[in-house]
Amino acid sequence: MEGKISLTEVRQKMASKKLDIYIQPRSDMYGGEEVPAYDERLKFLSGFTGSAGISIITLKNAILFVDGRYLLQAKMQVTNDWTIMPLFKESWIDWIVKNSSTGEKIGYDPWLIRVNDINSLNRKLDKTGIKLQPGKKNFIDSIWKDRPKIYQNDPRVWDKKYFPIEKSKKINQLIKEMRSKSLDALIITQPNQLCWLLNIRGDDLKYSPLFLGFLVIEKNGKINIFSRNKNKTLQNSFANNSFSNLIPYIEKFKNQKVAININYCPSIIFEKLKESNVEIDQNFIFLQEASTIKNKNEIIFIRKCHIRDGAALIKFLHWIEKEILSNKISEYQASCKLKEYRSYDKNFISESFPSIVATGGNGAIIHYRPMKDKSKIISKEKLFLIDSGGQYFDGTTDITRTISFKNQPQDVINKYTYVLKAHIAMAKLKFKTTTRGNEIDSIVRSKLWEAGLDYDHGTGHGVGYCLGVHEFPPVISKNTSLPLKAGQLLSNEPGYYVKDKFGIRLENLVIVQNCVSNDKEFFEFETVSLCHFERNLINKNLLDKDEIMWINKYHKFVYLNLKVLLNTKEKQWLKRKTEKI
Amino acid sequence: MEGKISLTEVRQKMASKKLDIYIQPRSDMYGGEEVPAYDERLKFLSGFTGSAGISIITLKNAILFVDGRYLLQAKMQVTNDWTIMPLFKESWIDWIVKNSSTGEKIGYDPWLIRVNDINSLNRKLDKTGIKLQPGKKNFIDSIWKDRPKIYQNDPRVWDKKYFPIEKSKKINQLIKEMRSKSLDALIITQPNQLCWLLNIRGDDLKYSPLFLGFLVIEKNGKINIFSRNKNKTLQNSFANNSFSNLIPYIEKFKNQKVAININYCPSIIFEKLKESNVEIDQNFIFLQEASTIKNKNEIIFIRKCHIRDGAALIKFLHWIEKEILSNKISEYQASCKLKEYRSYDKNFISESFPSIVATGGNGAIIHYRPMKDKSKIISKEKLFLIDSGGQYFDGTTDITRTISFKNQPQDVINKYTYVLKAHIAMAKLKFKTTTRGNEIDSIVRSKLWEAGLDYDHGTGHGVGYCLGVHEFPPVISKNTSLPLKAGQLLSNEPGYYVKDKFGIRLENLVIVQNCVSNDKEFFEFETVSLCHFERNLINKNLLDKDEIMWINKYHKFVYLNLKVLLNTKEKQWLKRKTEKI
Repeated sequence: MEGKISLTEVRQKMASKKLDIYIQPRSDMYGGEEVPAYDERLKFLSGFTGSAGISIITLKNAILFVDGRYLLQAKMQVTNDWTIMPLFKESWIDWIVKNSSTGEKIGYDPWLIRVNDINSLNRKLDKTGIKLQPGKKNFIDSIWKDRPKIYQNDPRVWDKKYFPIEKSKKINQLIKEMRSKSLDALIITQPNQLCWLLNIRGDDLKYSPLFLGFLVIEKNGKINIFSRNKNKTLQNSFANNSFSNLIPYIEKFKNQKVAININYCPSIIFEKLKESNVEIDQNFIFLQEASTIKNKNEIIFIRKCHIRDGAALIKFLHWIEKEILSNKISEYQASCKLKEYRSYDKNFISESFPSIVATGGNGAIIHYRPMKDKSKIISKEKLFLIDSGGQYFDGTTDITRTISFKNQPQDVINKYTYVLKAHIAMAKLKFKTTTRGNEIDSIVRSKLWEAGLDYDHGTGHGVGYCLGVHEFPPVISKNTSLPLKAGQLLSNEPGYYVKDKFGIRLENLVIVQNCVSNDKEFFEFETVSLCHFERNLINKNLLDKDEIMWINKYHKFVYLNLKVLLNTKEKQWLKRKTEKI
Repeated sequence: MEGKISLTEVRQKMASKKLDIYIQPRSDMYGGEEVPAYDERLKFLSGFTGSAGISIITLKNAILFVDGRYLLQAKMQVTNDWTIMPLFKESWIDWIVKNSSTGEKIGYDPWLIRVNDINSLNRKLDKTGIKLQPGKKNFIDSIWKDRPKIYQNDPRVWDKKYFPIEKSKKINQLIKEMRSKSLDALIITQPNQLCWLLNIRGDDLKYSPLFLGFLVIEKNGKINIFSRNKNKTLQNSFANNSFSNLIPYIEKFKNQKVAININYCPSIIFEKLKESNVEIDQNFIFLQEASTIKNKNEIIFIRKCHIRDGAALIKFLHWIEKEILSNKISEYQASCKLKEYRSYDKNFISESFPSIVATGGNGAIIHYRPMKDKSKIISKEKLFLIDSGGQYFDGTTDITRTISFKNQPQDVINKYTYVLKAHIAMAKLKFKTTTRGNEIDSIVRSKLWEAGLDYDHGTGHGVGYCLGVHEFPPVISKNTSLPLKAGQLLSNEPGYYVKDKFGIRLENLVIVQNCVSNDKEFFEFETVSLCHFERNLINKNLLDKDEIMWINKYHKFVYLNLKVLLNTKEKQWLKRKTEKI
């Protein structure tokens, strides 16, 4: 795949607008990782299909910044006239500052760049004579001829039992919090928060059951949605407007106090607020936190959902282990079969992201995705990595296993075992309620450091409740210093990768739970994902007795919960896989 | 002990100056933890003798802010008209902001309060109508009748072989760094950096061989010291001035660029720089880092010094274990005996801090110090904690052991074992060179969290090379996000405390060393302190095989290094103490 437009054509357009630099991120105006086809501008421009990245086009250069997960993939997807650069925090901003000169103009779409990025860029360009020039119409859209159709369905009809807390209760609590901070309004720019608050789900995206929209809630409880849906009222309850009406609407808050989240708010909203002399509150984090905390009844649903999802994965693993002995199976075929097993569930909506079904070296491409036409035949000799999940009415799943069909060299077994040690370190961690994400990250990683190993991605990300499979703020990585909250759902996914050889990643989802130990308050993780680990890849000599005990206990828990959902052969197979090590 | 002045008298003085609030910290103008007797203003005022704290006197309240280490001690030392409050970052500042009203005046000595604190206070008082009023003369000094004599000796004569890097080389490198940042001058306000740079040591303090002074170095290499020493030249090399001349001297940098460290710089210097329109560089960290990094030859000295220091501690432990069977020994007597053993060494200068020699519940007072007149008789039944160290020409030591003379209950043994597990976790940690102090802190602490335990102090502090026993920036604690550097010397000292019952702390010093693992660069710690752990307090069932291996290897290392310095009985005793567990 490559971009559908030549850089020459882009640069001609830039020249006609007198722009020296143009910024085009992967994200749409909601700043999420998954975007509708008609907002996939970066793919159109460069061919890159990853979920995060940002491109900078100058008259001489075309740079694509991507994070560690996507370095290999980006190199494969774009043409030679692009330069791939690793994306660390703010580095694309520094690149612009270093590579632009006095008098130059930098163009961007103010719906697509976040407030904090624009502020940071502005600070660094201060006094340089370089100008930021937000465009009125999107630059790429104006040259995108075969752009997919823009449309938005109504929110889905949903069984109310899956929303254990009524929307009125959530809204009332939000208004109470807003009043306590003297807020006149809150502009919600993250669709997952909109969906959480209103107890609605949509089908705007392939993998996340989100209804995409901005939401303005005022202190009197008045709610307005701004979306691409054409109806004036949604679900007979909520006023809906074209999102282009949001900017004029903001004027009504002149001289009032309004909260936004600058990490996710399009800069156009911020500029309009400033222009209208609105007092901007950047510290109202109530909704950010509340929307990621699962309540008791949701947790009960989440547990049940993970049992059914685990059974589907076991059926798939049982199937492939037999099938591969006699047939050639491609990664793509396997991914379809896995989806098929999940789809038998009555609560299944969609996969929660494109399955990563990767043989051998493909497993080292952290967000690999097998394509229908050119995916590899799964090798019996090599490691096989499956990272997948489902969206269900009662929860979102995300699980990774690395398996082997034949005996592996001792070195590979040892590496798998170290990743497993890191996974167990997090699974059985008891930690102070003030412990920060980067501290947990290091505790987990230190198990790999022991053997000189590491991985170039975070240890854990938040997961929604039938919402995005990546949900922030909860993060466990080097770059976050936020503590976790009880009720958050996160992934536990250490890994180890050798380019062109293999990838090992072991991922379960966990819930942050309160616990008391020695009369003190602690947090611990409850693992909710269910699937055995590969016993043939475990070197028991590298494990201590607590680790062995954890594995045996977890395997028993897997078997006892899944056996009723399996047929006799699958059950016998799982029994063997979960025997004591 | 209590303050030597009544709060009524202080408040009368405040009234005469029209002050509503007065701030008096423990620290002197150098901001260090140890201060000369004539600068012990907080002790004079409140009776509190701890190494860190700050008092705030208002017309109604007298508040003493101290950190977790000193809460118990402060309560014992001050009278009832004082309120003790735990000191977290900036909380004394917030207290002032909350407890002062429009029109009030806050007095302080601008030599004693650091720039960052005054800046933070200023920001928070902005628009409140509350005024900060730096005093021209110190408020406490003016009412301190029997103040100890103020004097300062010349720097000590020193064998040059203990300074493996010549001062000219250090100075030249510093000037090169200054020039690369276009600095006209650097004002050094931390005496340990002055001593490191000039290869001098002094005797201004009881426990740290520092020569106290400020130093101004200019880009042409010109050096001026500002101290209490009366000579115009020090060591035939350096121009010396009365420190009161520093402020007028600053005027010469008008319109130039000067670096300071705002965390350690008295606010009076900062104000004068601003007044003189000097461009202030707050980000010049070269010296801060360089002065904490020990070079190869210093590390060789440090290892040797720790062997001799370890032998002294072993002799003491052997002595007390015999002696206590037949005689009553007070904590104070024991501390004298320990000092005696250390003082036999030809390189011994002084203890590196007042020894903590604590029986039973006194061990839970984290910076306990036995007093001659009223220290406890050491109990044979209870845990006994010794935290001590020495200053030698070839290094600084700091080591803590908790021992027992008789069998202890299983619960106490288990707690000792968990602290030991945490200690070992740090001792054998391999970590990325970017790992931050708070991340290492959590890795160590997580071993205690496993059993619901924790401790209310940091895990490690930097240690000088024959300089302060607390040396910053290297810190391993919740509150630091700085990574470590190869060559830094730090303590590894997890603990566990039960008020009125016992304290467990196990401390060794470690050097940050480079290592390569799996072809990647890592850091690891080299333990340099030498003393066995208490085998009767170890529950082997709680240890994994790597931990057992670490202990046995360390014990062998202790025995092999120390045996040549011990007499036959001591050697046999240590042999038994270091047998394989």
